[in-house]
Parts: sequence; C-alpha cells; structure tokens
Amino acid sequence: MELFDRNQESAPRNATRLDVSLLKLSTAADERFPMNEFVRKMTAENALSNPNEFEAQLRAIGPERYHDLHPFHKLLHRGRLSKGQVTAWALNRYVYQEAIPRKDAAFMSRVHDRALRREWIHRIQDHDGVLPDEPGGIERWLKLTDCLGLDREYVTSMQGALPATRFAVEAYVRFVVEQPLVVAAASSLTELFAPSIHRERIAGMLANYDFVNDDVMAYFKRRLSQAPRDATFALEFVKQYASTRALQEACVDAVRFKCNVLWAQLDALYLAYVGGQIPPGAYRPEEEI
Amino acid sequence: MELFDRNQESAPRNATRLDVSLLKLSTAADERFPMNEFVRKMTAENALSNPNEFEAQLRAIGPERYHDLHPFHKLLHRGRLSKGQVTAWALNRYVYQEAIPRKDAAFMSRVHDRALRREWIHRIQDHDGVLPDEPGGIERWLKLTDCLGLDREYVTSMQGALPATRFAVEAYVRFVVEQPLVVAAASSLTELFAPSIHRERIAGMLANYDFVNDDVMAYFKRRLSQAPRDATFALEFVKQYASTRALQEACVDAVRFKCNVLWAQLDALYLAYVGGQIPPGAYRPEEEI
Repeated sequence: MELFDRNQESAPRNATRLDVSLLKLSTAADERFPMNEFVRKMTAENALSNPNEFEAQLRAIGPERYHDLHPFHKLLHRGRLSKGQVTAWALNRYVYQEAIPRKDAAFMSRVHDRALRREWIHRIQDHDGVLPDEPGGIERWLKLTDCLGLDREYVTSMQGALPATRFAVEAYVRFVVEQPLVVAAASSLTELFAPSIHRERIAGMLANYDFVNDDVMAYFKRRLSQAPRDATFALEFVKQYASTRALQEACVDAVRFKCNVLWAQLDALYLAYVGGQIPPGAYRPEEEI
Repeated sequence: MELFDRNQESAPRNATRLDVSLLKLSTAADERFPMNEFVRKMTAENALSNPNEFEAQLRAIGPERYHDLHPFHKLLHRGRLSKGQVTAWALNRYVYQEAIPRKDAAFMSRVHDRALRREWIHRIQDHDGVLPDEPGGIERWLKLTDCLGLDREYVTSMQGALPATRFAVEAYVRFVVEQPLVVAAASSLTELFAPSIHRERIAGMLANYDFVNDDVMAYFKRRLSQAPRDATFALEFVKQYASTRALQEACVDAVRFKCNVLWAQLDALYLAYVGGQIPPGAYRPEEEI
C-alpha cells in the first residue's frame, strides 16, 4: 500500500517523486503474487511525470491557447482597432484587473503556511498599491481608461462591461476558492506566457495608436518585471506540491482553464465590438463599429 | 417606498441616517391614507440608532462578555496557573493567532473597494510580518511557546490543541466569509476591548511567572498600539456602512459572537487544564493538574 499512500496530496516533500526502488520490488514479486500485476499497472498509470516533463506540459499550453493567439489581440496590437474598440477592451479588462487582488486574497485565506502568505501578499500589493502613496496596477490601468476618455466612476462601477467578461472573471475567483491549493496556484501560471504579449502590446499600441503614450502603457511595463518573478515562484511551488499524477493533470488543466478565462473575454469583445453585436446595457462607442 | 429603499445596504453614504423630513411627511398623511400608519410603525421599528447610540451598544458588550472576565484569565493574570497550564494556554491560543491572517485575507477577498483593501492589508502583515525580515505577531507568539519549552513543529501542527479551540476559531473564519461585509468587519471590534486585557496580562504575567520575561511578552506589547488603530478604523467603517437597523443589530450580534469565540476557547482550556479533564490527543503537561 505504501506506493499508493505516497501518492496522496499530504505526502511529505521528499516523496513527491515516486520511489523507483519500491516499484522494482513489486515488479520482481509478480510471479509469486499475481495481485502485484494489478498494483504495478495502477502504479504506472498513477506515476508522476518527472518535474521537467511536468513543466514542459505546463509550458506547452501557451503556444496552444494563450490569448496572444486571439484575433482580437492581433487586431489590437496591429493598430487595426478604432479608439472606441480599444476603449471597450480597456473597460472590460478593468473587470479582470479588479478581480485579481480578490483572487489572491482568496488564495491566501486558504493558506496555513505563513511563509507562503508572506511571499504571496506582494501580488495584492502589486495591484492595489501600498499606503500611503504607491499607486499599484489598478491605478495604472485607470490611467489608461482616463486617457481613453472614460469616466472613472463608470469604469469602476463595471456597469458597462460585458456580462461574459464578468462571468469569466468570477469563474476564475471561484476556481481559486474551490480547487486544491496547488491547482489554484497553477491557474496563475499563464504569467509564464505574459511577458511576450506585453512586449508585443507595448510596441504595437505605441506605434499604432496616437491616443496611447508611454505613460499610459505603464501597467504593461511594470508587468514585464512582475509577471516573470511571480511565475517562477508559482512554477516551483506547483512542481513541488503537485505530488500525485492526478494533481499534476489538474494543474495542467488549471492553466488551460485560465487560458479559457482570458480567451472567453476576448471572444465576447470580438462579437460585441468587432462583430458589432453589442448586448443590452454594455458600453457603446460613439463611432459606428 | 423611498424610506424603505434608503434602508438597503447599498444606500449611498449620505443616506445612512433616516431622513427625518420624509418621516414627518408620511405621518402627516396618516389621516388620508390609513396604510401610512403601518408604514409609520414599520419605519419607526426599522429606524437606525444614531451613530453615538450604536457605538455605545457596540462598546457595552465588552463589560458584559469580553474574555477578560473569564475565570481562566483571572487565574492566568494573577499568577495562579502552573507553567504547564500557561503552556496549554499558549499552545491553544496559537491556533487563534494562526487563523487571523486567513480571516483577514478572506475578508479582503470579498472587498471590491481598493481603498479598503489597501487599509486592511496591514492586519495580515501585522501577524505574518513582512519580507525579508520583519517577523510579525505569529513569530512573536512562537517566541512565547519557545520559552515555555514547546517544540515549534508541535505548536504549528496544532495537533495538541483542543478540538473546541479549533472549532471556535474556524467558526470565526467562516463568519467573516459568510456574513454581510459590514457585519464581518464588526466581528473584529473586540479589539476595542483588547488594550486593557493586554496591559493587565503583561503586568500580571511578568510579576507572577518566572518563566516569562519582557522579550516573550513582545506580542502583547505590540498589540497595545496595533489593536486601537485597527479598532478605530473598523468602528468608523461599521458606523458608516451599517445602514439599516437590521445591519446595526447584526453588527452588535457580531461582537457578541466574537466574544463567544474567545470565551469558548477559555472554557475549553478551563475544563481541560483547570478541571483536569483533558480530551484524548490533546497536550498533557508534565506535571499533574
């Protein structure tokens, strides 16, 4: 039974990889105890990917389905959108920004390990800023919506955002509340793919839109350094604590899920503001789509 | 209907007090519309306490049921407990300390207002400390359990704590997750009563126990300045946002509830370590009770 017990989530750190010597032992005993064939098969199916394979599986999701591939982002970054369409994007993306500190607080509310909380808390501060006068990412995002001519109260009320944006974003918050802790942490790993999209976005938007300047792109510039630091920590955490095959697979699925959260937001933007099918109550740009 | 609508939780700030001119109007109309008698009565029953009355109700709970009144604390502060009994107290109280940052993160995970999160976050940092080297309240508490001869892993595993302690503490965390936000905030208001107990404790324990010194009382000394600052903010928040009579009453009940959380922990300690009825699996002091 020891092999199976070691596959539980509560396994100690040094048991996160399957003990190969035990595996050999049970194989060698097959002839005398036919049941061991079943044990061997189950063990093989439940064997952990080695850390490098696991990391490769996590990283492979980016090129498959990260939202830099979405047609809306291609239009955004290539300067093919009108100011009204960019405004709709910034207004909706605020809903996502607004949720991130709540998501991270929800994560921390489940963490009994003080060292992990001490590490994680800066994510909240990166977005909320720090008293008395460090502004934080949400404030920087509002600089962008200011420059696009949106009223701050309208933006922060989220009344003009697309319902699909809000559903996707709150699904992310609930995911982090409800999933096993290591799986919740894994859902943040889209940050592995973020720097390239931010670099592309900064260059593309500055080159293509005269209503965008260096100052309003401050959010993305800051994320160029923040995201990799966070992603590196989360990746090591996930590799260490996804201590069963099932948890590893759930972590890979968590990154897919998070990509879906991001993708669904752009799909909704595309239908409304490229396709022109704006739902009742949602923001309407002044110009025709 | 306007009077009732103004009694909703979502009422704007300047409507937290009942608009008296509207009340007169509906009274004056009683003769023509008998239904208004019902409206007037309901309105009177639902009228808000004024802020001073409300604050007085909140403050009145301390002298009735704050845990400084508990027999276990009287024994503790007067030097009537053995080292083993003090150790049992410190071990169990760790469970409470350990939950506070999770409780505050859970609170923050429900807060959409960035300014409120920016203010609230220092509560987590007060307990967890701040990277790279500010230790925080939990670390100071572990100084106390160190000095009492407890192994840190045993303390932080919480395996020797009384089940009743853990149930009470987790009931507090759930309360903050589930209650209306202003009621959740109100449950922290026992901090209004904390400084006097801390002063009594520091003096009493230093005078009466030779195994306690200034250094290990650092937790309580720090709380002398932290608790009043937090309580002042939370009190103003609760007074401003408890915008219906029902919410005000729920806030007063929240302070009672929190007192119960604290009291139940001492009851469990009393039965186990004064009465000698230690439940299976709980910490057993070396000496006889």
